[in-house]
Amino acid sequence: MDQNITPHVLPTACDFTVFGGTGDLALRKLLPALYHRDLEGQLPADYRILGVSRSDLDDAGWRAEVRTALGVHVDAADLYDGAVDRFLARLFHLNLDAEAPEDWDRFHALLKDRPHPEEAVRVFYLAVAPKLFGSICQRLDEIGVVDEHARVVLEKPIGHDLASAREVNDAVGRVFAEPQIFRIDHYLGKESVQNLLVTRFANTFLEPLWNSRWVDHVEITVSETVGVGGRGEYYDNAGALRDMVQNHLLQLLCLVAMEPPTYVGRETVRDEKVKVLQALRPMAAEDVDRDTVRGRYDAGLVDGVAVPSYADDLGHGGSRTETFVALKTEVQNWRWAGVPFYLRTGKRMDRRASEIVVVFKEPPHSMFPGAEGTTAPNRLHILVQPDEGMRLHLTAKEPGPGGYRLRPVSLDLSYATAFDARLPDAYERLLMDVIKGNPTLFMRRDEVEAAWTWTEPILRRWAATPERPKRYPAGTAGPTSAAMLLERDGRTWTEPDQ
Amino acid sequence: MDQNITPHVLPTACDFTVFGGTGDLALRKLLPALYHRDLEGQLPADYRILGVSRSDLDDAGWRAEVRTALGVHVDAADLYDGAVDRFLARLFHLNLDAEAPEDWDRFHALLKDRPHPEEAVRVFYLAVAPKLFGSICQRLDEIGVVDEHARVVLEKPIGHDLASAREVNDAVGRVFAEPQIFRIDHYLGKESVQNLLVTRFANTFLEPLWNSRWVDHVEITVSETVGVGGRGEYYDNAGALRDMVQNHLLQLLCLVAMEPPTYVGRETVRDEKVKVLQALRPMAAEDVDRDTVRGRYDAGLVDGVAVPSYADDLGHGGSRTETFVALKTEVQNWRWAGVPFYLRTGKRMDRRASEIVVVFKEPPHSMFPGAEGTTAPNRLHILVQPDEGMRLHLTAKEPGPGGYRLRPVSLDLSYATAFDARLPDAYERLLMDVIKGNPTLFMRRDEVEAAWTWTEPILRRWAATPERPKRYPAGTAGPTSAAMLLERDGRTWTEPDQ
Repeated sequence: MDQNITPHVLPTACDFTVFGGTGDLALRKLLPALYHRDLEGQLPADYRILGVSRSDLDDAGWRAEVRTALGVHVDAADLYDGAVDRFLARLFHLNLDAEAPEDWDRFHALLKDRPHPEEAVRVFYLAVAPKLFGSICQRLDEIGVVDEHARVVLEKPIGHDLASAREVNDAVGRVFAEPQIFRIDHYLGKESVQNLLVTRFANTFLEPLWNSRWVDHVEITVSETVGVGGRGEYYDNAGALRDMVQNHLLQLLCLVAMEPPTYVGRETVRDEKVKVLQALRPMAAEDVDRDTVRGRYDAGLVDGVAVPSYADDLGHGGSRTETFVALKTEVQNWRWAGVPFYLRTGKRMDRRASEIVVVFKEPPHSMFPGAEGTTAPNRLHILVQPDEGMRLHLTAKEPGPGGYRLRPVSLDLSYATAFDARLPDAYERLLMDVIKGNPTLFMRRDEVEAAWTWTEPILRRWAATPERPKRYPAGTAGPTSAAMLLERDGRTWTEPDQ
Repeated sequence: MDQNITPHVLPTACDFTVFGGTGDLALRKLLPALYHRDLEGQLPADYRILGVSRSDLDDAGWRAEVRTALGVHVDAADLYDGAVDRFLARLFHLNLDAEAPEDWDRFHALLKDRPHPEEAVRVFYLAVAPKLFGSICQRLDEIGVVDEHARVVLEKPIGHDLASAREVNDAVGRVFAEPQIFRIDHYLGKESVQNLLVTRFANTFLEPLWNSRWVDHVEITVSETVGVGGRGEYYDNAGALRDMVQNHLLQLLCLVAMEPPTYVGRETVRDEKVKVLQALRPMAAEDVDRDTVRGRYDAGLVDGVAVPSYADDLGHGGSRTETFVALKTEVQNWRWAGVPFYLRTGKRMDRRASEIVVVFKEPPHSMFPGAEGTTAPNRLHILVQPDEGMRLHLTAKEPGPGGYRLRPVSLDLSYATAFDARLPDAYERLLMDVIKGNPTLFMRRDEVEAAWTWTEPILRRWAATPERPKRYPAGTAGPTSAAMLLERDGRTWTEPDQ
């Protein structure tokens, strides 16, 4: 049977190890996600969650930390004493110094200390600094816990440029085969993002519209209201292009632009995504100057609260790092040639919103001479966050006994109201996929490297020019140059609540 | 300037005469519609409404009747004493015996008894039996009140076959030029029906889908829960095909199927509608036998209330008249060849609903191997009554952390909730169009005759076969043969609330 469509089977036994078990990601996202799946009875019958960290905690100590975290990050309605206790009883903590061989021996012993350890699926979730990826994998190999059932999960960033990404991939790849490596991008676990595949490929109504004949342009916006907070040092070495565009925004672009695969299978979707990344118009120096905008936030008001500038968040003013990027690109293939894709993302913006907007062309001819009212091009909005859903904007006749008065209206699908069920967090979906061994929604090595190949010339050009990021007041839509990027093409950004 | 797009101007003076001024249509629809437009200040500054009937009423008597009718047929929130009194003061009644020349002289005097009678737009609304259309027009001509500003409004039916329709059109046409003749079909005044033009032609998203490549079939349903009531004698001479299909359903079909006109103008839309009627596949005898179903209601339960059979409503059992029709046809042109159009209408059905459903083809290939859940073809529903709106049915991913579970969802536009305004009744729009001289939404002579040309072979074949209409219990979806009409094509009717 085609491996691509073999059903994904839940293993009966699984040890799910989180390196960085006391970290923010583990406590805020991973353990709440696993709790939810346990609550639904969807985890393997015989599973353990092993927290590995440098904290001097015993099992009880970690369980107490996790209990507190669940209290904060799980909806009170989903917290049942019995269920929490049952879940916590699956948790074990190991205090590990990565440099101490005896600690690795203890880890090995812990993994072996279960019935039929050779049959258990072992997941190693590396929620730690990327510079540790290679050495952790090497140690895992050395202690002999990487078998064919083992899987490793890598959090971004995978490198900070093409060469370093290859280094990480090489190091991990020396221990794990590519199908065992799960490079996570939580955007791909969002319901509305997965639904984009369904909307495109389980329906007929979009396909005839989904090309350069009918699409005027595509906008992808990921705006945040938060600043860099405590991540200042990490962030200043990355910037918005590396932190958001190279992964999240390009992944969303791929899902919008990809050709229909033969079917939605393990490798087929990733094959098509790579093709999109490879078809992105390469950025020569003059393209970077013309088609990208960098910004950095000044002090300002976000939701009425005064917030400091990036320099103040960072503690010094010497940085050239961007907290905002807007850029224009194009997918150079038969379907999309000539259709601009505008991407933008930033911190300390006026609102938190992730949204894909496909703007269709105007009707070729105005058919209602003398009609009053306003029209706007048809648009499909894919809402990714904070609300997940879909809106189709079109023009309708305003009711009235006179002539034709036109008005934009929208056909709405809100996930929260359309489906009478709690929306699972992206991590819940993705962690289950890891446990079941389904890599469809994870980034394959060639995807990551193709994304870096396209991104790197932008970074290089920015580094080579004396120009600094444009300043924008916190709480705004970014620097005015970002608006001009579209205005010079006769377009404007679709604001998220339009 | 192109006459087609000259703005329609409200005249300053108008005499709006209703022949049949005490009849059901006048009291239930026409006068409430005019009241609403008066309330909005949209009627000409100097207007009168002249009620003509055989009733022995003076102005005060008719006004009292109309006041009562407004109380019943206008929403209480829209009834203001001052407004009603002001409106009623515009009303005048004339007791007229059509055979009495002196009565016509009095009518002539009444029309002349106003300032500048030669400048007033005269509307003659013939809310009377069609057999009187010709003679009334002739009298109007004889008394010299038909000038270039005069307009005549004809209620259906225009004839009961092609020859009689031509007779009526000839008789009216001897007095009024075609642009002065307004053949009313109130379905065309519905907001959702007019919005169909806007949806198709002020948007881009439908056009690439709107053809035989993407559309599987079209369904047009007009189902009523009422029986023939007091109209039994008239109805028994007509039947559902003449009463509903030849006009309303074919008009809806035309709006769905028509090519984009150069623009939406006086004659351009009607030109395109005629082309559709002329492109309908002609019904040979064997086509009638295969592609049409007649039904007649038996006693049954409608909304839980026992109702009598058609024979009991009629008072005798000898009739062969159909109260239900379902049929299959095709628009034989480049856009629609091979796409079945299924039409059905009936009395005493299980619900009151008028709806156009455009069913798109299934995706050419199933892309989600092993996906659970259900899918249905994409469908666009145009809701005409009782609620007006639009729904786009598509397939979405059901939220959940497992594989792809597909589920039909709908994107909804309800006119009542989307627009913060009262929906005007169809007659309000249409009467304003008459007063302003805009015939776009009225049936032109060639349309009516083309519709009869297509309909007549069905009537002839039915008359020539010994078969009688199939019986169906009141309160059901019609005879089972109507379902089989689609089932033999591998399809099913989309029920109105789906």
